[in-house]
Amino acid sequence: MALRSDGRAADELRPITIERDFLRHPLGSVLITCGNTRVVCAASVEDKVPPWMKAQKVPGGWITCEYGMLPASTGERMKRESASGKQGGRTMEIQRLIGRSMRAVAELNSLGEHTIHLDCDVIDADGGTRCAGITGAATALALAITSPYGQQNFLPFALRDMAAAVSVGVIDGEPRLDLCYEEDSRAEVDMNVVMTRSGNLIEVQGTAERNPFSRKQLNELLDLAESGLKRMFALQQEILDGAKTATLAK
Amino acid sequence: MALRSDGRAADELRPITIERDFLRHPLGSVLITCGNTRVVCAASVEDKVPPWMKAQKVPGGWITCEYGMLPASTGERMKRESASGKQGGRTMEIQRLIGRSMRAVAELNSLGEHTIHLDCDVIDADGGTRCAGITGAATALALAITSPYGQQNFLPFALRDMAAAVSVGVIDGEPRLDLCYEEDSRAEVDMNVVMTRSGNLIEVQGTAERNPFSRKQLNELLDLAESGLKRMFALQQEILDGAKTATLAK
Amino acid sequence: MALRSDGRAADELRPITIERDFLRHPLGSVLITCGNTRVVCAASVEDKVPPWMKAQKVPGGWITCEYGMLPASTGERMKRESASGKQGGRTMEIQRLIGRSMRAVAELNSLGEHTIHLDCDVIDADGGTRCAGITGAATALALAITSPYGQQNFLPFALRDMAAAVSVGVIDGEPRLDLCYEEDSRAEVDMNVVMTRSGNLIEVQGTAERNPFSRKQLNELLDLAESGLKRMFALQQEILDGAKTATLAK
Amino acid sequence: MALRSDGRAADELRPITIERDFLRHPLGSVLITCGNTRVVCAASVEDKVPPWMKAQKVPGGWITCEYGMLPASTGERMKRESASGKQGGRTMEIQRLIGRSMRAVAELNSLGEHTIHLDCDVIDADGGTRCAGITGAATALALAITSPYGQQNFLPFALRDMAAAVSVGVIDGEPRLDLCYEEDSRAEVDMNVVMTRSGNLIEVQGTAERNPFSRKQLNELLDLAESGLKRMFALQQEILDGAKTATLAK
Amino acid sequence: MALRSDGRAADELRPITIERDFLRHPLGSVLITCGNTRVVCAASVEDKVPPWMKAQKVPGGWITCEYGMLPASTGERMKRESASGKQGGRTMEIQRLIGRSMRAVAELNSLGEHTIHLDCDVIDADGGTRCAGITGAATALALAITSPYGQQNFLPFALRDMAAAVSVGVIDGEPRLDLCYEEDSRAEVDMNVVMTRSGNLIEVQGTAERNPFSRKQLNELLDLAESGLKRMFALQQEILDGAKTATLAK
Amino acid sequence: MALRSDGRAADELRPITIERDFLRHPLGSVLITCGNTRVVCAASVEDKVPPWMKAQKVPGGWITCEYGMLPASTGERMKRESASGKQGGRTMEIQRLIGRSMRAVAELNSLGEHTIHLDCDVIDADGGTRCAGITGAATALALAITSPYGQQNFLPFALRDMAAAVSVGVIDGEPRLDLCYEEDSRAEVDMNVVMTRSGNLIEVQGTAERNPFSRKQLNELLDLAESGLKRMFALQQEILDGAKTATLAK
Repeated sequence: MALRSDGRAADELRPITIERDFLRHPLGSVLITCGNTRVVCAASVEDKVPPWMKAQKVPGGWITCEYGMLPASTGERMKRESASGKQGGRTMEIQRLIGRSMRAVAELNSLGEHTIHLDCDVIDADGGTRCAGITGAATALALAITSPYGQQNFLPFALRDMAAAVSVGVIDGEPRLDLCYEEDSRAEVDMNVVMTRSGNLIEVQGTAERNPFSRKQLNELLDLAESGLKRMFALQQEILDGAKTATLAK
Repeated sequence: MALRSDGRAADELRPITIERDFLRHPLGSVLITCGNTRVVCAASVEDKVPPWMKAQKVPGGWITCEYGMLPASTGERMKRESASGKQGGRTMEIQRLIGRSMRAVAELNSLGEHTIHLDCDVIDADGGTRCAGITGAATALALAITSPYGQQNFLPFALRDMAAAVSVGVIDGEPRLDLCYEEDSRAEVDMNVVMTRSGNLIEVQGTAERNPFSRKQLNELLDLAESGLKRMFALQQEILDGAKTATLAK
Repeated sequence: MALRSDGRAADELRPITIERDFLRHPLGSVLITCGNTRVVCAASVEDKVPPWMKAQKVPGGWITCEYGMLPASTGERMKRESASGKQGGRTMEIQRLIGRSMRAVAELNSLGEHTIHLDCDVIDADGGTRCAGITGAATALALAITSPYGQQNFLPFALRDMAAAVSVGVIDGEPRLDLCYEEDSRAEVDMNVVMTRSGNLIEVQGTAERNPFSRKQLNELLDLAESGLKRMFALQQEILDGAKTATLAK
Repeated sequence: MALRSDGRAADELRPITIERDFLRHPLGSVLITCGNTRVVCAASVEDKVPPWMKAQKVPGGWITCEYGMLPASTGERMKRESASGKQGGRTMEIQRLIGRSMRAVAELNSLGEHTIHLDCDVIDADGGTRCAGITGAATALALAITSPYGQQNFLPFALRDMAAAVSVGVIDGEPRLDLCYEEDSRAEVDMNVVMTRSGNLIEVQGTAERNPFSRKQLNELLDLAESGLKRMFALQQEILDGAKTATLAK
Repeated sequence: MALRSDGRAADELRPITIERDFLRHPLGSVLITCGNTRVVCAASVEDKVPPWMKAQKVPGGWITCEYGMLPASTGERMKRESASGKQGGRTMEIQRLIGRSMRAVAELNSLGEHTIHLDCDVIDADGGTRCAGITGAATALALAITSPYGQQNFLPFALRDMAAAVSVGVIDGEPRLDLCYEEDSRAEVDMNVVMTRSGNLIEVQGTAERNPFSRKQLNELLDLAESGLKRMFALQQEILDGAKTATLAK
Repeated sequence: MALRSDGRAADELRPITIERDFLRHPLGSVLITCGNTRVVCAASVEDKVPPWMKAQKVPGGWITCEYGMLPASTGERMKRESASGKQGGRTMEIQRLIGRSMRAVAELNSLGEHTIHLDCDVIDADGGTRCAGITGAATALALAITSPYGQQNFLPFALRDMAAAVSVGVIDGEPRLDLCYEEDSRAEVDMNVVMTRSGNLIEVQGTAERNPFSRKQLNELLDLAESGLKRMFALQQEILDGAKTATLAK
C-alpha cells in the first residue's frame, strides 16, 4: 500500500479544524479547515418562508443553501459567477445537496415561519469542498438553532440529529478516505457520503469517474467513510459543547 | 406486502417500450416509454470539440447531454425554462448525470474530434424521467455510433459497454422498484442506480427524502435495481439488433 | 408546371394527421403531423389572469402561447434556448402570432378569471411549423374549452369560430401551397395565412424573401391558401366530433 | 364618414418631416416626424460580417436593424429594456421586420464584407413607430450608401429600390390611412404595408385585432396604403436629392 | 497657453442650449446641447415608491435616474445595452451619480408617495455627457415639480436648491474647463463637479487618469468648475422663468 | 467634541491588520482587517490580455478588479449576486474604482502580455470596505509583482508607487476619519480618498449624502485623510518588507 501524495495512510483523514463564530453578523457561523480546504459556513435567519410554501400552505419553516467559491480559491483563477451572470451546474448541484442534507436532520415544522439561509463560501480549495461545506453548515445550523434567538423562536428538537460528510474514492485501485484535489482529479471512483451522527445514511453519491465499480468496492468505500465520519462527529460536538476551536490533528 | 397504486408487485417494472429512429434528423434517436413517462432521446454529432478541450489539448471527442421537459408534461403546467431565462438546478443536475453516465461507457479517444450531443426531452412525466433518459440516451448513442456515419468517423470500440438506469425507493417502509410519480413524491428514500450491462455501477445516488437509511436498506435497494436493470438491457439489445420497437410488458 | 420536390402539385397539401389527447396532463392536446413536420400542441388552464389584467381591471380571461423546438428537430441541431438563456426573435414572433390568432376566435369575457396556456413544441421540423402550430393549437384549445372542466368553468360560446393556418409562397415564379423546408428556404415570396372557418382572415403575413411581389401575386397566393384551409377545417372537425385520429391523405 | 380624432380625412396622412444628417457620427441618419411620432434613424458601417456568414461562406455584406424606445416616449413611462435585461417580443418583431425590409431592396453582394447597422430609436411615440422606422431607415441607408464612404467601399447599385411603410386599419368599420395611437389602440383590423418605390409589396402584415376581415377589406386597405406611400416616396426623394429637410404638410 | 482643439480658452465653456418641453409625454423634459453633446432629459412621475421604501416604512417619495446612449451617438457605434442583456458598469455609475445628485437638492418628504423617474438619453456624444445629464435632469426635475401636476401633488419646497455639473481636467499640464471628447480621452486628470446654485458641493469625483495630482491642482480645478457653473445656473433659470430655449453662446 | 460610537477620536483610525499570503493559490494575497471590516484581496495572473487590447493593438498588460461580498458579511443577509444573475450598481462602481486606482500606480507597459486580476471579497462588513479593498489590493498587487514569478515575467518598475485609501466624512457637523458602518450610514458628507505613498491624489470621491458641503469642509476632510493614509503606507511597507502580519493598534 503506497503512501499518499500528502503522506497519509489510505484510511486517514486530513487535519481538520472548526472555528466557531467566524463571522460577526449571522446567527451561527464557522470556518472549517480540512487540510488545505477552507470553507466559511454561515446560518442566517429570515422571518418569512419561500412563496411556494405560502402558496401551497405548507406549515413550518424552510432551510436552504447557497454555495460559492472565491475566484482565487483554486489553482487557476475561476471566473466569478456573479460576473458571468449565472451559477454553473456544479454550484447548483452542490448547494442543492447541502440544503437537502440539512433538511434531512431538521424538523421543519419546529422552525415556525422562518427560513434559515446557509451560505458555504470556499476561501481555499483543495478537494472535498462540498463535504467540508456539509460538515460546516450542519455545525453553523446547530449553533443558530441553539442560539438565544433560536431558543426563543424555534420549538425544541428543531434539529433531530447532526450531519457530516466525507469523500471517499478509488485511486490506483485502492479505496481511500478524504481525497485531496490531486487525488480527486484522478480518482477512478469518487463518492460523497453524508451520514447522521446516529449512523444512518442521508446521501450516497458514488460516481465512476473512470471505471464502473462493483458492489464490493461500494461497500469498502462506505466502510471507510463511516470510520472517518465518527471522528468528525466528535469534533462537531466539541464546538457544540462550547469550544471556540476544535482540531483533529493528522 | 400491499399492492402498489398501479397494481404492481414491489419488484416489478412498469411496461417499457423503446421505439427506434423516432426523429428524422439526428444520427440516433428513440422514444422511450416507461409506464406513463415518455422521453424523446436523440444523439446528434457536431464536427468539433468544446473550447476547453482545444485549450487544454485533450485528445479525442466529447459527449454531453441536455435535458428538458415540455411545459405540459407535468400535472401542473411547468414554467418553460427558455422563457424564464435559465435552466433550474434540477435540470442541470439531471443533464450532468446523464452526460457523465454516457462518458463512463464510451471511449472518448475513439470518437475523433467530434462532440455527440444527447438531448433528452420529456413529453409526458410520471416519475423516473432521468432514469428513462439514461436508458434511452444510451440506446440513441449506440445507434449513432453504429450508424453508417459512426462507422466511418469513429474508431471501433467507441462504446465499451451499455448503460441503463432505474429508480428504487422505500415507500411505506417497503423497498420498491421503478417508482411512479405518486410513489416518488412520498418516498422515504429515493435512489437512482446507473449500471453497465456487464454488471458494474456507474452512479449510485441515494437520498433520504424523509428518513435517513441504513446500509442494509441500501443493499436491498441495490439488489432490486440490479434485477430490474437486467431486463432493461435485454430490451435495449433488441433495438440494437435492429427491431423497430421493443416492449417489456408488465 | 414542374413537379415539386416531393411530387406534389402546386395546389396540393402534404398529408396531414391530427391525433387527439396526445398528452396525459393538459386539458386539451394534439399531435399534428404535416408531411414530415410534427408539433405537439397543448392547452393548459391556470386559475388566474396575468398581473396587467388585474392592474388594469380588464374583465374576463386570457389566452397566451409559447413555442419551442426540440434541439434535434432540425437538420443541423439547434441550440437549446433554455441553455442560451433567452428565446430568439423568431420564437417570440411565432408565439405572439399564435397567441393573437387564438384570441381572435375566442370570447375572452366568457373564460372567467382563467388563463389558457397554449404550448406548441416542434418534435420534427420540415417547414410550416408555425402554421401547423396554429392549426394544432386551435384544436387543442377547442378540446379544452369543450372538455368537462371547460363546460363547468367557462361560459358557452367561449370559442366563436375555429382557426387554421397554411403557408403559401412563390417558388421558381410559381405560387405553391404548403411549403416544405426545401421550398421555404428558397421561396421568393413566403406568406402565412390564418383564417377562420367562416372564411375571414385573421392574419396575413406576406414577406418578399427575395423579390418584392405584386398585388396580383398576393391574390393568387390568398386563393391557394383558402383552398387548402377548407380541407384543414374539415379535418379539425373530425377531431372535435370525437375521432381519436383524423387523416388527410395526399 | 366621421372626422378622425385629429381632424384628418380617412385617406389623409399625418404631416411628415424628414430631417437629414440628424446625428454627427453615423454614415447616414435622419429624424423622421410623422404627426407626433418622432424616430431617429441611423446607418452605421462595420468592417466585418456576422459570424454565421463567415462560417457558411456566404459572400457579400449584411444589413441588420435594432429598434428601441426612450422610456419617456410613451404616455405611461415604459420600462427601459437594458435595465430589465432583455428586449421584449414586440421589439424583436419590429427590428426583424425593418431589417428584412431593408435587405429586400439592397443588393447584399455589392456591399463587400461590411455590415450596415440600422438603429431606429423612438423619441416620441404616437402610433406608427415601426412604419416611420422603415421609411426613415431606408432614407438613412440610402444616405449611407451614396455617401463618399459608400461610393468608395460598395459596388454601384447596392440599393436596387427604395422602401417605405405606412399603417392602415379599420376603425369604426371604416378603412383609414396612417393610424395615430388613439386609433391604433381601438382598431378592429391593423395592417402594416411595406412597399418599394417601384410599386411592389415587400411585407404585408394584417392582423384582426378584434374582428376577422374579408378579402374585400384587405384590398381596400392595400389601396389606401398605396396612395399614401406614393407621397412618402416623393418626400424621401427630396432628401436624397440633397434637401436638409423635407416636409409633407397635412 | 495653447488654444484648445476647438479654439476655446482654458476657462471657456462650450456653447450650451437648453430646450424646454422637448418631449410630449413626461411631466418635465429638456434637450440640453453642450457643444456637440446632446442629451434628452425627462422627468416622469409614478404614483408609488420602490418596494424597499414600503418594506422599511420610509416616509415620502423617491427620485431615481436611468442613463443610456443611442448606439449611433458615438464615433464607433456602441453595442445596444438592451441587446447585450445588461447595463455596463459605466452606465450604472453614471445613473447612480445623477440620481444621488438630484436627491441631494430635493426634499423627498415633500413628494408624497411618488417616484420621479429621470431618464437621460444621449443622442450625440462628444464628452461631458454625465455633466450635461445632471444639468438637464435638474432642469427637467424642476419643471416637473413646478408643473400644474407637481403643484397639486407635492408639498411646497420639494426642491430646495438647483444642481448643475461640469467637467474639468488637466490636459498637457493645463487645467481646463468643460472637456470635449478629444480632451477627455487624453486628460491626465479628469474631474466632475456637481454643485448647488447656492455655491456648495454635491459631488466631487476627481480621477488620475494618467498622473496622480496634487492638492493645489485639485483646488485650481474646483475654481475653474465654479466659474463655469455660475453661468450654467443663469441659463437654467431662464428656462425655469419660462423661456422655451435658452442659449449660452461661446 | 463628542466621543465616537466606538470610542475613537475624530482623527483616529480603527485598528488595522494586514496578513500576508492569506490564500494558497494566487500570486499575491492578503487579509486586511480594519476594525470589524475584513476583506480578502488576491492578485492572480493570466497569460493574456483582454480582447479590446488585442483588437486596438494596445501594447503592454492590464490590471482589473472584481469585488464581492459574502451574503452573510452584512447585518441583514445580502442576496448573492451570482444567484440574482447580475452584479449590482454599487459592486460595479467599487470594482471599477479599485481597478482604476491600481492602474494609476502601475506601469502597464512593463507587465508584458499579462492580465492581473485583483479580487476583493468582503468576509465581514462594518463600513469602509472599498477603502480596505484598495489598500489590500495594492498590497497584494505589490506582492505579486515582486514575487519570483513577477520578477521573471514583468519588467522592473512595473509598480511606480503604492496606493492606499481611507474614508472620511462629516457626522454631526464634525469631520471624522475612517467611518464605521454606523457613522457611514448617517454621514452628512462621505468621501473616499485614494492617494499615492508619494503624497498625490489618485481619486477623490466626495458625496453630499445629506447636506451639500463647502470648499472649506472639503479641505478639512482631505487633511484628515492624508494624516490617516501616512500611517497606512507604513503598515503596507512592513508587509512588503517581509512581515507575515502587520498591525496598527488603535
